Amino acid sequence: MKQIEQTVLEIGKNAKAAAIAARRASTADKNRALEKIVLEIIEATDEILSANALDIAHATEQGLDAASLDRLALGASGVAGMVEGLQHIIGLQDPVGAVKDLTVRPNGLNIGKMRTPLGVIGMIYESRPNVTIDAAGLCLKSGNAVILRGGSECIVTNQALSACIQRGLIAADLNPHWVQLIQTTDRAAVGELLALDTYVDLIIPRGGKSLIERVARDARIPVLKHLDGICHLYIHEDANLEMAHALIMNAKTHRYAVCNAMETLLLHKDLPASFVDEALSALIHAGVEVRACERTRSKLTDVGSVQLASAEDWVTEYLGPILSVKTCADLDDAIAHINHYGSNHTDAIVTESLQATQTFMREVDSSSVMVNASTRFADGFEYGLGAEIGISTDKLHARGPVGLEGLTSEKYVVYGTGQIRA
Amino acid sequence: MKQIEQTVLEIGKNAKAAAIAARRASTADKNRALEKIVLEIIEATDEILSANALDIAHATEQGLDAASLDRLALGASGVAGMVEGLQHIIGLQDPVGAVKDLTVRPNGLNIGKMRTPLGVIGMIYESRPNVTIDAAGLCLKSGNAVILRGGSECIVTNQALSACIQRGLIAADLNPHWVQLIQTTDRAAVGELLALDTYVDLIIPRGGKSLIERVARDARIPVLKHLDGICHLYIHEDANLEMAHALIMNAKTHRYAVCNAMETLLLHKDLPASFVDEALSALIHAGVEVRACERTRSKLTDVGSVQLASAEDWVTEYLGPILSVKTCADLDDAIAHINHYGSNHTDAIVTESLQATQTFMREVDSSSVMVNASTRFADGFEYGLGAEIGISTDKLHARGPVGLEGLTSEKYVVYGTGQIRA
Repeated sequence: MKQIEQTVLEIGKNAKAAAIAARRASTADKNRALEKIVLEIIEATDEILSANALDIAHATEQGLDAASLDRLALGASGVAGMVEGLQHIIGLQDPVGAVKDLTVRPNGLNIGKMRTPLGVIGMIYESRPNVTIDAAGLCLKSGNAVILRGGSECIVTNQALSACIQRGLIAADLNPHWVQLIQTTDRAAVGELLALDTYVDLIIPRGGKSLIERVARDARIPVLKHLDGICHLYIHEDANLEMAHALIMNAKTHRYAVCNAMETLLLHKDLPASFVDEALSALIHAGVEVRACERTRSKLTDVGSVQLASAEDWVTEYLGPILSVKTCADLDDAIAHINHYGSNHTDAIVTESLQATQTFMREVDSSSVMVNASTRFADGFEYGLGAEIGISTDKLHARGPVGLEGLTSEKYVVYGTGQIRA
Repeated sequence: MKQIEQTVLEIGKNAKAAAIAARRASTADKNRALEKIVLEIIEATDEILSANALDIAHATEQGLDAASLDRLALGASGVAGMVEGLQHIIGLQDPVGAVKDLTVRPNGLNIGKMRTPLGVIGMIYESRPNVTIDAAGLCLKSGNAVILRGGSECIVTNQALSACIQRGLIAADLNPHWVQLIQTTDRAAVGELLALDTYVDLIIPRGGKSLIERVARDARIPVLKHLDGICHLYIHEDANLEMAHALIMNAKTHRYAVCNAMETLLLHKDLPASFVDEALSALIHAGVEVRACERTRSKLTDVGSVQLASAEDWVTEYLGPILSVKTCADLDDAIAHINHYGSNHTDAIVTESLQATQTFMREVDSSSVMVNASTRFADGFEYGLGAEIGISTDKLHARGPVGLEGLTSEKYVVYGTGQIRA
């Protein structure tokens, strides 16, 4: 067995043992550990920042691009943000052990469902060192053991953070294997982790599309992920036009490089030409490149500033100041476009009609479906989950932003008084 | 492209289109289709029985074993059972569209979760032709399209049943591709179905362990399954001994070849020798071969009738009149044994202690955990789900018996009044 295989296997075994022990931990135990980790981070702030400076220096030397360097850099506010995040998780309700739907069967059996941790989570991510603390905090609070595999550009920072977590767990008398960082930057470690189906229950990748595609392709373990955020905003014929204008601007221009930004605007064919003209002009004025279908272009006064959208545009997540625009025949046409070209992330309708709302909500097959709200709200904090470990656009288990509850599942609990099956 | 690849691809595309149309169907539409299918089955009873006779004759000629022949044979009561099953599904509540946990955020957004179909289900099964009708009925009612791949020994029966379903769907004005049977017995079709990740959202295998292992290994799509049912009954030191005796007998001898039968009995070390002796004698008297650990054997009057259990016994699902028995030091020892050797299916404790119950319920990591009840109750009908499409021992999505709700998931729905993100 190769050294790296041996190392990851050992980590997996230790994680499994920690996950079994974690089922015994009370909410107080878990909160105490989180508090200890907070203290360790505060105490080690200088050490963490020095480690981060080393990573930044090395990444700069390697010629890492500015956006990645920005994600990598912590600063004092970054450390404070991590502490705040953990304190927030301490305040969240522990989902583990909650029993729901307890009903009495005719034979007297009481049957319900109890929330239970998943077991061992494998977290594979890039750049942002705050993921190390967020993931550790959420997994700890939900009673799961976690194996962290951060980006190689962030290894020294992650080692400093991981050391704080270890000291915190030990100070709280908990098994330090609850949270383990893979210490090597050897790329083979990812492959080993993805094959560890005996010990790992769920893989969560966070990062660029190529990372997530690789993980989804190679994993022998369930993966919770989203690949694309091709989010749509559809303006129905009866929309409040002032509201529609504001939502268009917010969904597209509030932040460009985020997965819940609008990438395609769908317009009902009977919307006034003046509305379409003003909305697209405002976008262009804000620096957005607009690519529209022929039908939309025919409504514009200055059609020269809007290029014709290609087939490729409907399936592109720009993550930047570009927007595709399509005119639809009706609600059904808009829904069909979203279900065909979308990415099951977040899609919204602007309408005053109850019936159009109900049809849109029911038939659009996305993890978040909205009416009269900006797609930018698709986020664990905005939804009141307290925190999110990721967003899922898959069909099973948790869909949309995933918080503590998505890190658990439900088992059946049956309370009898000696019932036997006849 | 090979012919079989082309055929399965076509079925997948049609299923996907049907699944999109299915989101539009009302509960009344779906129930009407189920009623039409019932009428078609009743009318075609003779045809179905003739088809079944052909399958039985062919299987007999091929030398199929008696148990498989028994599973294959329908008889008039089999057809009546299928009709009854469908009528039962008509009476079940439609989970699709139900919204829960709708709460108001500080900014006025109303956020909740809506139940939604999964999309396209691939069902791969052996022998029992009733699975064809059960799966079709459950998928139809939950708004999912389904692709059925039954055993080759059952193909003529399945074709007759599938024809009834098709006629019923058409009579109800619904897309006949909601339910499609793979008409060829070519084994390559299974491989093609397992690779159809663009069109199929979930694979459910039902049958022998080798079938399920193959599906789990080869699928590029999430699989809902259980491999083994190594169910435990643990008798705690304070158990009501009369109740414990009855539960032991029921969990082991009620039916042998089922996944929720007890395979290992765990006994607290301080249970009276007379109780152990009587319980094991009763089992032996009922025809059960008992294999026990040394500590258990030392409590018996006629130790000669009980052979020593091997390490292999703790991980074996006998599916027959054999039982392994182990004496445990305490509750923790029993829980550790179950979590280590069990199959996450169904495990039960017999105790009068509230604290032991709570510890057992929380720490045993199985899809069904019981107190003072026979493991034989782990079943969708017994749990009040109305029907079950299978049992899952995996950690994500639905665990335990899976009914209509397990064939759906939840998406976020957000109702705003023009909120934008600041």
